Amino acid sequence: MQKTPAGPELDHLIKLLSGLPGLGPRSAKRAALYLLKRREQMMEPLAAALHDAAEKVVPCDVCGNWDSRNPCAICSDPERDDGTICVVQDVADLWALERAGAHRGKYHVLGGVISPLDGIGPDDLNIASLAQRASAAGIKEIILATAATVDGQTTAHYVTDRLDGTGVEVTRLSHGVPVGGELDYLDEGTLAAALKARRPF
Amino acid sequence: MQKTPAGPELDHLIKLLSGLPGLGPRSAKRAALYLLKRREQMMEPLAAALHDAAEKVVPCDVCGNWDSRNPCAICSDPERDDGTICVVQDVADLWALERAGAHRGKYHVLGGVISPLDGIGPDDLNIASLAQRASAAGIKEIILATAATVDGQTTAHYVTDRLDGTGVEVTRLSHGVPVGGELDYLDEGTLAAALKARRPF
Ligand SMILES: [Zn+2]
Ligand SMILES: [Zn+2]
Repeated sequence: MQKTPAGPELDHLIKLLSGLPGLGPRSAKRAALYLLKRREQMMEPLAAALHDAAEKVVPCDVCGNWDSRNPCAICSDPERDDGTICVVQDVADLWALERAGAHRGKYHVLGGVISPLDGIGPDDLNIASLAQRASAAGIKEIILATAATVDGQTTAHYVTDRLDGTGVEVTRLSHGVPVGGELDYLDEGTLAAALKARRPF
Repeated sequence: MQKTPAGPELDHLIKLLSGLPGLGPRSAKRAALYLLKRREQMMEPLAAALHDAAEKVVPCDVCGNWDSRNPCAICSDPERDDGTICVVQDVADLWALERAGAHRGKYHVLGGVISPLDGIGPDDLNIASLAQRASAAGIKEIILATAATVDGQTTAHYVTDRLDGTGVEVTRLSHGVPVGGELDYLDEGTLAAALKARRPF
């Protein structure tokens, strides 16, 4: 990273900002200048918010979701169905499903996928705690919502094996044409899956 | 901004992050999750760096550049020519010129441009301090490096008028074809300016 003429404090800040996803070295410089112009309104509040979130937001002991409550707001919600657990790779996927508003049960965050290339095995993920939850009374269905990638599907198969014998129904998200999606932008795998899973109109 | 299920601390952080140039609501969420996964290595250091820079980086009393030294490193550098002052709109422009390494004099940061539409007049900019510097002994040349926009050029004209009578030579950056630039991507104004300012080959 090229240094600015502004001294070590600002260079250090720019270096850290440029490590954020979505910000490169150039936009990190712009962001730093933007913040310096708004010390009281933005820069100090952002420092405080980072510190505050780092201190208070913790993984939920039950499901692995992040929240400043523990158990998290979703696990603590009596309106949500305890019998259905949706398994996601990451908190970002949980957020995406919550935005869709289609799942009214609970979640379980694996914290990643099995990836031999990256040295991530089953024991590095929250799979044991999922097996434990699945064997509790009242659990009817585990919905696997890992990504439709090789690693995501490997992980889904591994989780299914681990849940074998619990008697719980294991389902997965359907593959198909995204709503509003044009067919000729889709890859053949998705098209083949959508055709195979066709339903009466 | 749509709330996450993660509680007010994280929502507040995401809202602040999404105010940064280059980060929208979606990338602010990604950045927040990225930071939460790296509390000790990234999140707390970033909070500290923001706080540190907000406290230590100040505008130079002489030229308006930002630095943790005051006067700034450039103003304090005895190797740089005191007789030539390059006038820029913003600290980002000073950084760009320093990257180019072509200016070995000093700078003066106006802090913006005259913009009647935005309610910014000459008195909102560091023009009086420039006029004062220009009338000091030993100043030979003021290089105007404001943007080639209407507001930038209005500001350059205003500054030139204010420097009238100081006897200092006032110059501006040349217009022309960017190095490596293809002619047919350039606007007609630039091409006309490049043609008019043509030089012997
Ligand atoms: Zn939870
Ligand atoms: Zn200075």
